[in-house]
Amino acid sequence: MNQTLWLIAAIVMGIAALAAAAVMYKRIVAESAGNERSKQVAGWIEEGAESYLKKLYSALILVAGVLSVVIAVAFGSQGGEKGGLMHGIEMAICFVVGAAFAAIAGYIGMMIAVKANVRTAVAAQKGLVPAFRLSFDAGTVMGLATVGVAVIGMAVIYWIFGDPSYVLGFSFGASTLALLAKAGGGIFTKTADIAADLVGKVEVGIPEDDPRNPAVIADNVGDNVGDVAGTGADIFDSYVASTVAAMLLGASMFSDPMYAFLPLVVCVIGVAASLIGVQFVRVKEGGKPGTALNMGTILTCVFLAAGMLVVVALTAIPWAIFYATLIGLITGVLIGFVSDYYTSDEHKPVLETARVSGSGSAVNIITGFSYGLVSVIPSVIGIVVATLASYFVTEALMPGSGIYGIGIAAVGMLSVSGMIVSSDAYGPIVDNARGIAEMAGMEEDVIVTCDKLDAAGNTAKAITKGFSISAAALTVLAIFHAYGEEVVAASATLTKLNMDLASPLIIAGVFLGAIAPPLFSALLMLSVTRNAFDMIEEVRGQFRDDPGILAGTSLPDYAKCVGMAAHGALRSLIGPAFIAIGAPLGVGLLLGPEALGAFLGGAIITGVILALLMTNAGGLWDNAKKFVETGQYGGKGSEAHKAAVVGDTVGDPFKDTAGPSLNTLITVMSLAASFFAPVIATLSLMK
Amino acid sequence: MNQTLWLIAAIVMGIAALAAAAVMYKRIVAESAGNERSKQVAGWIEEGAESYLKKLYSALILVAGVLSVVIAVAFGSQGGEKGGLMHGIEMAICFVVGAAFAAIAGYIGMMIAVKANVRTAVAAQKGLVPAFRLSFDAGTVMGLATVGVAVIGMAVIYWIFGDPSYVLGFSFGASTLALLAKAGGGIFTKTADIAADLVGKVEVGIPEDDPRNPAVIADNVGDNVGDVAGTGADIFDSYVASTVAAMLLGASMFSDPMYAFLPLVVCVIGVAASLIGVQFVRVKEGGKPGTALNMGTILTCVFLAAGMLVVVALTAIPWAIFYATLIGLITGVLIGFVSDYYTSDEHKPVLETARVSGSGSAVNIITGFSYGLVSVIPSVIGIVVATLASYFVTEALMPGSGIYGIGIAAVGMLSVSGMIVSSDAYGPIVDNARGIAEMAGMEEDVIVTCDKLDAAGNTAKAITKGFSISAAALTVLAIFHAYGEEVVAASATLTKLNMDLASPLIIAGVFLGAIAPPLFSALLMLSVTRNAFDMIEEVRGQFRDDPGILAGTSLPDYAKCVGMAAHGALRSLIGPAFIAIGAPLGVGLLLGPEALGAFLGGAIITGVILALLMTNAGGLWDNAKKFVETGQYGGKGSEAHKAAVVGDTVGDPFKDTAGPSLNTLITVMSLAASFFAPVIATLSLMK
Repeated sequence: MNQTLWLIAAIVMGIAALAAAAVMYKRIVAESAGNERSKQVAGWIEEGAESYLKKLYSALILVAGVLSVVIAVAFGSQGGEKGGLMHGIEMAICFVVGAAFAAIAGYIGMMIAVKANVRTAVAAQKGLVPAFRLSFDAGTVMGLATVGVAVIGMAVIYWIFGDPSYVLGFSFGASTLALLAKAGGGIFTKTADIAADLVGKVEVGIPEDDPRNPAVIADNVGDNVGDVAGTGADIFDSYVASTVAAMLLGASMFSDPMYAFLPLVVCVIGVAASLIGVQFVRVKEGGKPGTALNMGTILTCVFLAAGMLVVVALTAIPWAIFYATLIGLITGVLIGFVSDYYTSDEHKPVLETARVSGSGSAVNIITGFSYGLVSVIPSVIGIVVATLASYFVTEALMPGSGIYGIGIAAVGMLSVSGMIVSSDAYGPIVDNARGIAEMAGMEEDVIVTCDKLDAAGNTAKAITKGFSISAAALTVLAIFHAYGEEVVAASATLTKLNMDLASPLIIAGVFLGAIAPPLFSALLMLSVTRNAFDMIEEVRGQFRDDPGILAGTSLPDYAKCVGMAAHGALRSLIGPAFIAIGAPLGVGLLLGPEALGAFLGGAIITGVILALLMTNAGGLWDNAKKFVETGQYGGKGSEAHKAAVVGDTVGDPFKDTAGPSLNTLITVMSLAASFFAPVIATLSLMK
Repeated sequence: MNQTLWLIAAIVMGIAALAAAAVMYKRIVAESAGNERSKQVAGWIEEGAESYLKKLYSALILVAGVLSVVIAVAFGSQGGEKGGLMHGIEMAICFVVGAAFAAIAGYIGMMIAVKANVRTAVAAQKGLVPAFRLSFDAGTVMGLATVGVAVIGMAVIYWIFGDPSYVLGFSFGASTLALLAKAGGGIFTKTADIAADLVGKVEVGIPEDDPRNPAVIADNVGDNVGDVAGTGADIFDSYVASTVAAMLLGASMFSDPMYAFLPLVVCVIGVAASLIGVQFVRVKEGGKPGTALNMGTILTCVFLAAGMLVVVALTAIPWAIFYATLIGLITGVLIGFVSDYYTSDEHKPVLETARVSGSGSAVNIITGFSYGLVSVIPSVIGIVVATLASYFVTEALMPGSGIYGIGIAAVGMLSVSGMIVSSDAYGPIVDNARGIAEMAGMEEDVIVTCDKLDAAGNTAKAITKGFSISAAALTVLAIFHAYGEEVVAASATLTKLNMDLASPLIIAGVFLGAIAPPLFSALLMLSVTRNAFDMIEEVRGQFRDDPGILAGTSLPDYAKCVGMAAHGALRSLIGPAFIAIGAPLGVGLLLGPEALGAFLGGAIITGVILALLMTNAGGLWDNAKKFVETGQYGGKGSEAHKAAVVGDTVGDPFKDTAGPSLNTLITVMSLAASFFAPVIATLSLMK
């Protein structure tokens, strides 16, 4: 295995992905943005998104600035062969580069999304096929940009330093941005959504997406910042984290340097598979966009498997690696389809929740919540089976290397991220297109076309969310093991991290870790309701001060609401960010590296369970409402519908704020622990 | 330490408690049950409760019958010094006796509750003081009967066999009954509650507790079977389990036999402290019943501490035991008061949830649920601190015995159960009294008095629930360690149970254990809504078939609804009971004793967190509704009130069905694992 050759291949493949994204970007931007009205509306959304990103990135600069000083000092003060201020500065630089690269990927995604939304609406005037094509291509820009930037960053840093612990710095930086982007975006989008609905639909009685509502642009901006930029950053972060975890395990478990960069090889093949896979996502007039998206995902997986087969057959890479990749890939897809079962309106959970809605919102909520709890079971069993299978298969073929197999399974799962992000980003783009069509007063059939595209987006979303949570779970399990290796390597006294559950300190660590995800999600959801209340006051004030707004003769102050949502979201991140980075450091320094390992274990367990529960329950309530709206159980306006709307609103912060942010939380916590492992090993009170 | 003397003391103290209970029982029954009307209503409730208990105990006989055959065969087929069919039969007998004793305690509690409710209503005609006195005395009958029966059972079995593993059989039997009683009662009570409300209040528009509603008697029976018999069985089970866990640890960790029966000594002092403590729960006319209840709890703790101080000073018992008891006691009380913070209408969580209710039920639910998540944090930190403190204090004074300190802390917490059950059982009795007063058409001031008593009951309930969850947590941690000792003692190959989180099999075990509580609670809640739907059909049918019911000229068929609730509840227990007993056996036999240990660890973590979340969120929603009903934010009938009612209904199965049953689940799982440890150690596929 020639390492340099593969690193060059990684960089070239990354550049190819970026080039493909650039070509598509240009082609999309060249499409028509419609008449003055649609351009104006789209302009407001674009402006809002840009102003939020500016605020977000300023916050990032602040956080990254503080953290990079902490990093430089902490690592600079270390002794040993890797000590010295220069080492500290290098680590800080890798961290900053990681944060910056993730920010760039997010920026590209956001920019294409706010340009593609209006163009999708315009294209929908010509029919489903061109609109689908355009919106999926826009998703692809985001998908390819994400993996392209990530692969280039990892390969270059590894090439320069020749040591995965620097790539870990890059990954920690990327995750810090992801945490801010995902949690902040999640708060932003639901603040605006709830405020717009409660004042607009409920109090004043104007329809959704009515341009007279001052919060409506903030709501549309929210879809972009939460679902596009947030999700992109989230998968960027899991993608890099899974790769670096496997690289760290490879470097510490084997003397052959091949194992340290082998995860990058899987990434290279994955980018290639995605580049080909996205070409197959096409739909004919009258065809089903949802099937096209799923076909694309499955084909990409097949291409990856084929690519791995060829590479393993031709090189010195052991067969165990191929099987581990395959296990990860298959599990990811299966768990995705299981999520679909619990959230699709063709199966019992959604149908039953819709049926009981006639007896009121309480019964709707109890039923949906209960099915959400049940939905956790098959996914967790899937994660357990994938962990054990990849471990034992690798252990059988390469004795002593089982843990590495778990790392490779996570990389296998996430190597198709290019395709996954593409179908995921498609969803909010068509959702936004629908809003713009409404606000710009386009014809009814445009809206019908957008709705069809949106329905496909929802199915794709359920699958990609299930996929990304299970991938994150496997990734954090791999980082968890990498953390153990890092601590032992850095410690003067530990020869093995002993995390026996029979030790009270370990049980204490597990319990403390286990309460971090509940606290984190509670803080996010309480921020949503608090910020929404502030915005409701603002909207009421605008209606009161200028009666022309409701009459349609004067424009509301959209920017004010966007600004409030942005400011509120970022201010609300202080507590959650502290939990993510401060808590593991605190536990490590106070209770020692073994308790910190247990803390991570506890956080992973409740984090994964809560994430699955919240995401699936939210999706289920959403689709139960939509099912009632098709005319079942009385249809729109019935008691069942009112109850289903309550369930849907409860589910909103579950599925779009807290649930998916938990992924990022456990990744950031595990990365923070691994990254600071050398510091904790030397400075902890109980070492 | 003279073992025989202490065992005699335990039996004598148990008999004293039963005698005191009998005296009070006679005194209460001698009070007036009022006029024909109130006697009639009370008679229906008593009949319903008896018919449910008959069904429940038939189910118990079935389950216990099957399990005792399994036990006799499994233990009978074991080799070694403890092997042989005789041993199997002895174990089965201990199991059956445990189940029978727990059933007796539940029966006594239920019988006094259904007699005291009507008498409390009648006494309330004379004022608050006699009504409080009577209802609390009735609670005391239950409290003293519970601890009396438990102490006698444990002491006699230990005396006969001289080995705590037989007491473990007794404890496992008691827990099996507790699981059926608590989960079954929880389903029963909420099925009837929701059905009565949805048809009565919402569809037909008759008030709560209206005798024309066919489900109203079932609703009142439910309060007794769920809150009195269920909670009594639950605390009986924790009480015995904590004692036996410490006994097992004492027997395996020390050569001095004193440590094996020392937990019984703490129980003896605890029963004495409770016997004295309940005498101090008195209220003057115009005084606060809530303060009286809390005073009683605190005084009992002080008496226990004083008793321990004296006994430790006079005997060979090490001081570490005194400190560990004290730590358990203080933590229990503190956690109880923390639960009060999150559920009392004098603090932010309830006030904030009430305030946002004006914006609809969705916001009420998101806010209440979020505070429920936050409420987990201080309690878990309390449990962690208690675990570490009792461990390290004991370890410092008696090196190598830290784990035993955790067991003793759990016993310390639960030794005041006599008092705890007394104030807890008081709540549903006054609640029922209010219902009877309403149905029997008593004067308005009787209902006002009952409401005052009820409010005190709610505060006491929040505290006792917090107390019992934290006690259960500490108890299962102790059983968890006892399980480790049991498996190692029985295994031919294991010298130490290695549950290192870095092992994939252990992580798999933890994950599988962690999903058991969510699945268990989902099954219980889904049963509630399903059974409530069936009962709603029945109630509608009765109204339709006999118009005389609503006109008040003919009586509805109350027994039909009681029978449906009972049948539905017991039928719904099959799945949950299988999870509780089948899952740990399955994991142990398939994945081995170490993975089973990890499974228990995972179940304890999510079980405790879910139990705290559900219990506290439910209590919070309940009190937010009551706060709005005092006239805040528009008071009764306002939009805020409607929203708060939805929150309260969602909270009902949270706090009365799933939440408290989780305690029992994790206790049963841990006991099942410990009890079958010798079987698993020899028969598992991976040993």
